Amino acid sequence: MPPGSAQPTASGDSGNTDEQDYAGTPRPDAMFPVLDDGQLAVLSDVGKEWDQSAAAPSVWRSALPVDPALGTYPAPDDFRPARLTRFVPVAGRGGQLPPIETTSSAEALPTAAGRFGQRLKRALFGPPLDASAIAVERMRKLIALPVLSADALSSVAYGPEAMLAVLILAGTTGLSYSLPVGSAIVFLMLAVGVSYRQTIRAYPQGGGSYIVASQNLGRIPGLMAAAGLLIDYIMTVAVSISSGVASITSAYPSLRSATVLIGVVVIIVLLGGNLRGVRQAGTLFAIPTYAFIAAIGALVIAGLVDAAGRDFHPVPAHHLAATQAVTVFLVLRAFSSGATAMTGIEAISNAVPSFKRVEWRNARITLSWMIALLISMFAGILVITKLSGVVPESNQTMLSQLAHVDFGNGSAYLFVQAATAAVLLMAANTSYNDFPRVLFLMAGDEQAPRSFLHIGDRLTFNTGIVLLSVASALIYVGLNGNTASLLPLYAVGVFLAFTLSQTGMVVHWRRHHDQPHWRRSLFLNATGAVLSGIVFVIAGATKFTSGAWIALVLMVLIVVAALRIRRYYETAKQELMLLPGETGGPATVTVPVAPRRQRPGSGGPATALQRDWNAEAAQHPDQVDALTIVPVATLDRPAMRALSYAAALGQPVLALHISPTDEEAQRFSRYWRTWGDHLPLEIMVTPHRAYVAPLVNYIWTLHRQRPDLTLTVTVPEIVDRHLWHTPLHERVVPRLRHALQALPGVVVTSVPFHLGQ
Amino acid sequence: MPPGSAQPTASGDSGNTDEQDYAGTPRPDAMFPVLDDGQLAVLSDVGKEWDQSAAAPSVWRSALPVDPALGTYPAPDDFRPARLTRFVPVAGRGGQLPPIETTSSAEALPTAAGRFGQRLKRALFGPPLDASAIAVERMRKLIALPVLSADALSSVAYGPEAMLAVLILAGTTGLSYSLPVGSAIVFLMLAVGVSYRQTIRAYPQGGGSYIVASQNLGRIPGLMAAAGLLIDYIMTVAVSISSGVASITSAYPSLRSATVLIGVVVIIVLLGGNLRGVRQAGTLFAIPTYAFIAAIGALVIAGLVDAAGRDFHPVPAHHLAATQAVTVFLVLRAFSSGATAMTGIEAISNAVPSFKRVEWRNARITLSWMIALLISMFAGILVITKLSGVVPESNQTMLSQLAHVDFGNGSAYLFVQAATAAVLLMAANTSYNDFPRVLFLMAGDEQAPRSFLHIGDRLTFNTGIVLLSVASALIYVGLNGNTASLLPLYAVGVFLAFTLSQTGMVVHWRRHHDQPHWRRSLFLNATGAVLSGIVFVIAGATKFTSGAWIALVLMVLIVVAALRIRRYYETAKQELMLLPGETGGPATVTVPVAPRRQRPGSGGPATALQRDWNAEAAQHPDQVDALTIVPVATLDRPAMRALSYAAALGQPVLALHISPTDEEAQRFSRYWRTWGDHLPLEIMVTPHRAYVAPLVNYIWTLHRQRPDLTLTVTVPEIVDRHLWHTPLHERVVPRLRHALQALPGVVVTSVPFHLGQ
Repeated sequence: MPPGSAQPTASGDSGNTDEQDYAGTPRPDAMFPVLDDGQLAVLSDVGKEWDQSAAAPSVWRSALPVDPALGTYPAPDDFRPARLTRFVPVAGRGGQLPPIETTSSAEALPTAAGRFGQRLKRALFGPPLDASAIAVERMRKLIALPVLSADALSSVAYGPEAMLAVLILAGTTGLSYSLPVGSAIVFLMLAVGVSYRQTIRAYPQGGGSYIVASQNLGRIPGLMAAAGLLIDYIMTVAVSISSGVASITSAYPSLRSATVLIGVVVIIVLLGGNLRGVRQAGTLFAIPTYAFIAAIGALVIAGLVDAAGRDFHPVPAHHLAATQAVTVFLVLRAFSSGATAMTGIEAISNAVPSFKRVEWRNARITLSWMIALLISMFAGILVITKLSGVVPESNQTMLSQLAHVDFGNGSAYLFVQAATAAVLLMAANTSYNDFPRVLFLMAGDEQAPRSFLHIGDRLTFNTGIVLLSVASALIYVGLNGNTASLLPLYAVGVFLAFTLSQTGMVVHWRRHHDQPHWRRSLFLNATGAVLSGIVFVIAGATKFTSGAWIALVLMVLIVVAALRIRRYYETAKQELMLLPGETGGPATVTVPVAPRRQRPGSGGPATALQRDWNAEAAQHPDQVDALTIVPVATLDRPAMRALSYAAALGQPVLALHISPTDEEAQRFSRYWRTWGDHLPLEIMVTPHRAYVAPLVNYIWTLHRQRPDLTLTVTVPEIVDRHLWHTPLHERVVPRLRHALQALPGVVVTSVPFHLGQ
Repeated sequence: MPPGSAQPTASGDSGNTDEQDYAGTPRPDAMFPVLDDGQLAVLSDVGKEWDQSAAAPSVWRSALPVDPALGTYPAPDDFRPARLTRFVPVAGRGGQLPPIETTSSAEALPTAAGRFGQRLKRALFGPPLDASAIAVERMRKLIALPVLSADALSSVAYGPEAMLAVLILAGTTGLSYSLPVGSAIVFLMLAVGVSYRQTIRAYPQGGGSYIVASQNLGRIPGLMAAAGLLIDYIMTVAVSISSGVASITSAYPSLRSATVLIGVVVIIVLLGGNLRGVRQAGTLFAIPTYAFIAAIGALVIAGLVDAAGRDFHPVPAHHLAATQAVTVFLVLRAFSSGATAMTGIEAISNAVPSFKRVEWRNARITLSWMIALLISMFAGILVITKLSGVVPESNQTMLSQLAHVDFGNGSAYLFVQAATAAVLLMAANTSYNDFPRVLFLMAGDEQAPRSFLHIGDRLTFNTGIVLLSVASALIYVGLNGNTASLLPLYAVGVFLAFTLSQTGMVVHWRRHHDQPHWRRSLFLNATGAVLSGIVFVIAGATKFTSGAWIALVLMVLIVVAALRIRRYYETAKQELMLLPGETGGPATVTVPVAPRRQRPGSGGPATALQRDWNAEAAQHPDQVDALTIVPVATLDRPAMRALSYAAALGQPVLALHISPTDEEAQRFSRYWRTWGDHLPLEIMVTPHRAYVAPLVNYIWTLHRQRPDLTLTVTVPEIVDRHLWHTPLHERVVPRLRHALQALPGVVVTSVPFHLGQ
């Protein structure tokens, strides 16, 4: 496991510990930091300073004016029951624990809009799920095989075609290279498959490329693998959907003009389904893959039977004019295009814990089956394509052409197309599980924004799901849903991740001499790594100008962003950690704490008491020296309430009036005396009728005088019942809040006054 | 003067009192309410309750920890002088008055963006102006005539053409009605002109339609007049610009395709110029109008000379096929189209105080001159059009055709076109003064949003200027800058305002029997009113389907909106006014004020002390019962500072932790005990990982328990130095603030913690 995600779970009471170990399993408390012993010691120190506080612990200890445990109060007369039932007390009261538990209806904001939004959300995405529903479904091999191999097997729908589409550039001569290049890819599949068998044994808790590369190679290779994977998952969605749509439009050519629209609708459906949180496994999910295997099997067998009738003489194709010569570059490009048929091969090694026991053994058997199927289907398609003389066309997929040749136009043809579209949809859906999980792991290591740690109320990683949808939709629409344009962006990410993951395994075996057969495993992983690395270089080089550069640039950007995010979080974490107390800590305080009451009662401000620190350094109440500033425009109820509120806090208060003219200033001053001049007042005349900026500058200057002082700007704010009344008031408070946000030590308190209550 | 704008100006020390009386003169303190005696008495009562406060007046009276007068402190080491000089103390310190005066640089926010924005603003719009710069320029008649009549005189650029464009529908027969219809319009001009002469005498302080109609007819007629005027001013901009652009494209037909673009650019230039605040009068402004008068004069004379050579036989036009018969409807429509030449006739009566003394006499003389010029130019154009056989064309304005006929293509022709375009631009600019002024008057009567009262730092009504630009640009672009399409929307508003204004004058004279010649004035105004009313009805009816309905609907909407705004402000004002104290006021408090310390020290909450009022009713500190709620996610520095801040206020504090799981809840509870359990803590478990809504619901329930309690939600908020770090934190505070805004009595305090300081 990568460093950051290995958080001690102090509770440790969940029965299924091995499931908890599944890398990438959502943890609902992932966003809540765990304090280590050092931090706990500091916390205790800080607490001791509170014990000696000159402030008012008696007030803190006195009874609260409300019952914090709720519910023991009779409902007021106007208290609507629908609202009351929002809080269901689940356990005894009085103590602080066990805590109050809210019901799901408490998750709607207590406004009409909030309730409507909640109801809409429920209707679209279903009721919220308890965290206890997090569980990894254990799969039999017969279910695991189709579920986990949909991504890999569906690749044969576009891989062979992509390869032939390159070779055909060299005409009939070029096409004659199809079987040699195909054999090289089959060898590669075998080598990578065997290599991943080693990973499964070494990482029974799930060995995704990010984890393996991070643990064995270090942070940056880990991030490179993660970047490759993220691009890969985005491209899997875009390519699978474009290929799936192509298999539909091959059968119904009239839909071809709607390619982009259909794809976007499919992405929206996937987004909705995944926000709802679809089940990952089950018989239903097995059907498309088995149907696709059956369809390709039938296609190949029918093609071979057909060819047997011709004594295996290929149907002579029209002579194809060569637009390019057969060069090494062309052959390599065909090879890297065909290698897209290998995408998704790593899925089983990620998901070892979801197998029945003994997990790693079952996973290896399933992987072997998958590789066998993948090779058979890939090779079968290439062979019957050769025999039937079919060549790639832009209007129809090659699978569709082959199905037409074998089965005509009947229901068997439609079955092939439907099964292809279905398995590609499944493959796209796979990315919706894997993409957010990689980001969750990265966020756990503080290498991605923390919001990817957040688990929605349907136990889904909503941020990641939305990001994947947006990214894949952008790429899909940007390239017009054209599979041929999308594929060049695809292979580089996959093979970078493969290479790093398998290189990581090599390091792993070198570190674990104690494991049985480590030498053999090391050799097999090394072979896989070298071959994958070669393919990565070939893919990057041969497709660089046709799109691979985009993928490469994106990967670099992701790695750089992740490193910067990590640095940011590291710095922020240091800054946010509690400081040791005044006795043991750094000399943040040079002047002894002086309670407010000791201040000289007359004349100028108490410079002598000024502390050479920032007001935000305060960690206990005696360190908070406060001054409340109340900007007052007129002496109406909201202003009087704000003044009362400020005065009731028992801190020094300074009222501030900003006036456009001397006359108005004098008038206001008279009003202030009429009221009784209870609080110090300062009037500022701004001859140019600006209000917010002079106020901010004034407060800023006060802050400069005493940076150790917490200035609380208490602003009366009129709140309207209706949104459309907003333009009828000057909205000063939001502007003030925004402008004051840059100033340290300034607290903005808005004291609302509700109209029409 | 309308009721609301007649605010007592207590200062009354400005020397030029008669200028202050000028209706619509900007008052910088218009947004600051003046309290009447009743309110002052209440204010004094409330102050007496503060005198008896059990709260801490000693704290209020003690020296402030800062010097509120600023500037007596030496600059700290890191205090940059450029910032320090922002505050220039203009007068003695120590007392509260004279107040601190800010310099203009204090009006930039103390951030880089703020300073850049300020510098950009200065570059575009010039340095800020002191309110003392508000002055009405006194004009000689020779300057006043061109400045104030640009709008009216420029109307002859499109009025006659619009009339003939209707008559031509009935072919040659139709055109023969041009002189009779024209004569009717000339008569109308005379009658309305004479009528406005009466207004000038009665309203030497400026008698706009809104003021006259409001004062004499009541609120709704006043608003109807205002609505008519507002539409009128918007249409003046749109029509003048479209007509001005047409006179340019007549000379340079290749520009015709850019009509919309040129118009929008002109509107943007007018917007910028008016935000900068252009001078309203001066020799420069006289040039376009005099040039236009000269141009039309030359045109008419040349045309007459030409016709004299033919013994005043009209040039025989091609026979024009009639597409419509000459009906009463057609003639009336031609009449109402031609009557657009009268728009702007009211300008002089609005601006009486800007004349030299004796103002009303000079204004009347100028008005007579203007009417004479208007009639001459209008009649002259009609006559020479008839004589020269020119008919309206869609590609070229009629004035351009006439100029071609008279002057060929030379510089004389170009002079006519340039003068026309210039005077039309001046006319559009006139609206930029009048439109915001009407809204200022309406806002003073609380019949328009208060932001129209605000005077920008260039002494301009920015809100109104922007609104006018947007509205006229929308209409201009929507109708493709086509004068013929724009005109039907124009006349109705003008004539409604004319009618109401002159009807108001009738009522005025009936009320002022003491005035000399009141009977004659009444008769003249009544004539004007009846004639204007007839034109209004004709214009509304004959052009209803071609666009007048839009203007009528807009006017109704404006009146309805103004009435609702007024009702809103009335209600709000009542609610915002200070309530009389507990002794004299309504029984808002049923339980005697109980200082916090008397609360029972144990057990449940102090229900017995609950007051049956809303927390927002508090008017003095003893009425504020506060509970501070500190939501805490983790015990880091921001949280500890928020807790310290809350505890230092000496009010009861309740910490609140929202946890996704029981395990996390127990863990947090342990941390809390490690710290020392200094403050009451409540933990809420939300099984579905929602945080904001349960928090809001919890606070909402507490509020229901004690609606008299002010709940201060004190939230630690991490502030980043850079905007782009924002996505790296969960932004809970804004969502919380938004959600809590609906709850009365809940104060949201965000305690910022700045990273990277």
